[in-house]
Amino acid sequence: MAIGNLTDEAMLLHRKLKGKISMESKMEIDTTDDLSLVYTPGVGDVCQAIVENPNDVNELTARGNMIGVITDGSAVLGLGNIGPKAAMPVMEGKCMLFKKFANLDAFPICLDNQNTEDIITIIKSLEPSFAGINLEDISAPRCFEIEKRLKDELNIPVFHDDQHGTAIVVLAALINALKLTENSKEECKIVINGAGAAGLSIAKLLLEAGFINIILVSLEGVVCEGEPWLNNSQQEMAKQTNLQKVTGTLDDVIDNADVFIGVSGPGALNGEHVKRMGSNPIIFALANPTPEIEPEEALSAGAAVVATGRSDYPNQVNNLLVFPGIFRGALNAGASDITVEMKISAAWAIAEMVTEQELNPNYIIPDALNKLIPFTVANAVERAATYSKAISNESY
Amino acid sequence: MAIGNLTDEAMLLHRKLKGKISMESKMEIDTTDDLSLVYTPGVGDVCQAIVENPNDVNELTARGNMIGVITDGSAVLGLGNIGPKAAMPVMEGKCMLFKKFANLDAFPICLDNQNTEDIITIIKSLEPSFAGINLEDISAPRCFEIEKRLKDELNIPVFHDDQHGTAIVVLAALINALKLTENSKEECKIVINGAGAAGLSIAKLLLEAGFINIILVSLEGVVCEGEPWLNNSQQEMAKQTNLQKVTGTLDDVIDNADVFIGVSGPGALNGEHVKRMGSNPIIFALANPTPEIEPEEALSAGAAVVATGRSDYPNQVNNLLVFPGIFRGALNAGASDITVEMKISAAWAIAEMVTEQELNPNYIIPDALNKLIPFTVANAVERAATYSKAISNESY
Repeated sequence: MAIGNLTDEAMLLHRKLKGKISMESKMEIDTTDDLSLVYTPGVGDVCQAIVENPNDVNELTARGNMIGVITDGSAVLGLGNIGPKAAMPVMEGKCMLFKKFANLDAFPICLDNQNTEDIITIIKSLEPSFAGINLEDISAPRCFEIEKRLKDELNIPVFHDDQHGTAIVVLAALINALKLTENSKEECKIVINGAGAAGLSIAKLLLEAGFINIILVSLEGVVCEGEPWLNNSQQEMAKQTNLQKVTGTLDDVIDNADVFIGVSGPGALNGEHVKRMGSNPIIFALANPTPEIEPEEALSAGAAVVATGRSDYPNQVNNLLVFPGIFRGALNAGASDITVEMKISAAWAIAEMVTEQELNPNYIIPDALNKLIPFTVANAVERAATYSKAISNESY
Repeated sequence: MAIGNLTDEAMLLHRKLKGKISMESKMEIDTTDDLSLVYTPGVGDVCQAIVENPNDVNELTARGNMIGVITDGSAVLGLGNIGPKAAMPVMEGKCMLFKKFANLDAFPICLDNQNTEDIITIIKSLEPSFAGINLEDISAPRCFEIEKRLKDELNIPVFHDDQHGTAIVVLAALINALKLTENSKEECKIVINGAGAAGLSIAKLLLEAGFINIILVSLEGVVCEGEPWLNNSQQEMAKQTNLQKVTGTLDDVIDNADVFIGVSGPGALNGEHVKRMGSNPIIFALANPTPEIEPEEALSAGAAVVATGRSDYPNQVNNLLVFPGIFRGALNAGASDITVEMKISAAWAIAEMVTEQELNPNYIIPDALNKLIPFTVANAVERAATYSKAISNESY
């Protein structure tokens, strides 16, 4: 679809539908008896049952299947800090995807508040309404503090999709790309361009998955211990990356890199960079809608595998591969958190959806609209959750 | 339905449905083009349109038809402070009723927080998600402060149903009851037993509607200026009621009363009290499930008209007559507040649903399941809102 047409069509569609989601009742209320059952006085006994056993709220109300999709509108798509009302069309879209791909109910909460402490208080207070919290489009570094605190203080899964959804798909794509280039996670050199929410989260998950040689580059320069401009999250990551303590810019670290992962902006990488990388370089140019380097340029400069964030090129790195299955699996398992094991299992499950016969440089990750994926991811996540529980029970 | 059966049936139903509401998508996502329209990249232009014109959020998203049904679980039905999770079955029921009777989408928010200032901050922050806020089952006197502040500080309708919903139906019922007893609002003496959220709100609305002689009685005694135990809201109401400054208990004010309105508890009124009232006394015994006096006893002691909160007696005072139409009308009018004029108009509209031919002591208010009522109420509220706007425009 051409961009001009897309704008017109999207506007028309949204105006016609007046929003993309609705709340519906699961039964009709036609008689006084119906009313007595779903509302007063019959509902009183149902309330009382939850007083006696609070976990029954998940069996007796919609809460057990309800995800809160929560933003403060501070970092929406590539649009930036457009505020909570303008963020609503994205959040509604996300809620539709939860329903379509994981049969989860999801409700969009757009907060007119960008104070970190307020946001934490608010989301904690909303816990009785939701079985899980999907944080969305909250700017860095506030998103780190908000997610960390909520994970610590809430007993339901909390997942900042912009960080971990992206990291999981990148890991999945990288697992398969390395099969093609016959490189190993222990030996390959990875440069991540962009040290915001996505870049830091990708670095963290890759380290947790066993990758060793990772260098982060931000707009200020290479992330290196001791640099005065590092924020807290970058400082922490500096201790585990860039082991040779190189300073400078992308130019100073791109030589012999096996993998470039861009979560930055258009034009950050050029053909010369690609030529200076190791043999069979892997390029994930994920800036959207304009990638760090056009796939054609990367390929003609020698890239072995190219992935982008776009649906009109091969190998789309799309969070839709992850978030429905992650939450479905976590809720199925009754998990109170989304753990590293669950995230890595999700990545492997996605990677393995591409068979050995299918795998080629133009097909390293499955299509996001494949409805088998969320079930496969959910199963993997549920297994990992059960395994984590078993491990933690061993200490008794 | 017998009470035992009702409990079993209600529990079974709730367990089978796993909650009474669901979030649904208004369209299917089957192709990459669908995805591009409802989510990225097409959604970006819709976001941009809302940045340019924030009011468009009501045209381009579900927000324009979405009511937040919000509680802190501190005063749920007759069950008291059972907390937010146990309150959920009631809130879901309410959301179903909004859908059924006014085609409004409604979402239940149960807050794990009973701090007044926090609740105000939270609800203000939730404003981008909702076109209106229905406060529910929040205990007095906190509910007064919370509603007042939200009405002042938000530009969307805020309505505490336990206060105003009840007050509006009481006014509607009283308008018709007085037609039967041929008494006037200027002359009748009204005793309201119960000076919490409902009692105070009823007194306030009756004063605003032109009633003059009102006496409130709380558990501590007759509400009278200067009593040391009055809370802020009672103090304010003491200035406009009990003009002869009587102190004491219900016993000291019941003589010659024309109307008794009970929003208190079982057994608060007896036949002797009724006999001491004026001729043709009107008794609204609204405590639920056990009224202040059994209707049979009130009638045999000479009551001319009896109403209760129960569906198994004639004349059920039921908020369902009010809240769907109030919000539908306010939203249709694009009103930023629910005004006194809108509330009084709603009461008159409900009263007038009972024709002169139909009106009798066993039929002073229409049946709550009559689907014409919310439309009639909505029309009246919309007209009142438009009229209020016209009046306020006259000052230009």
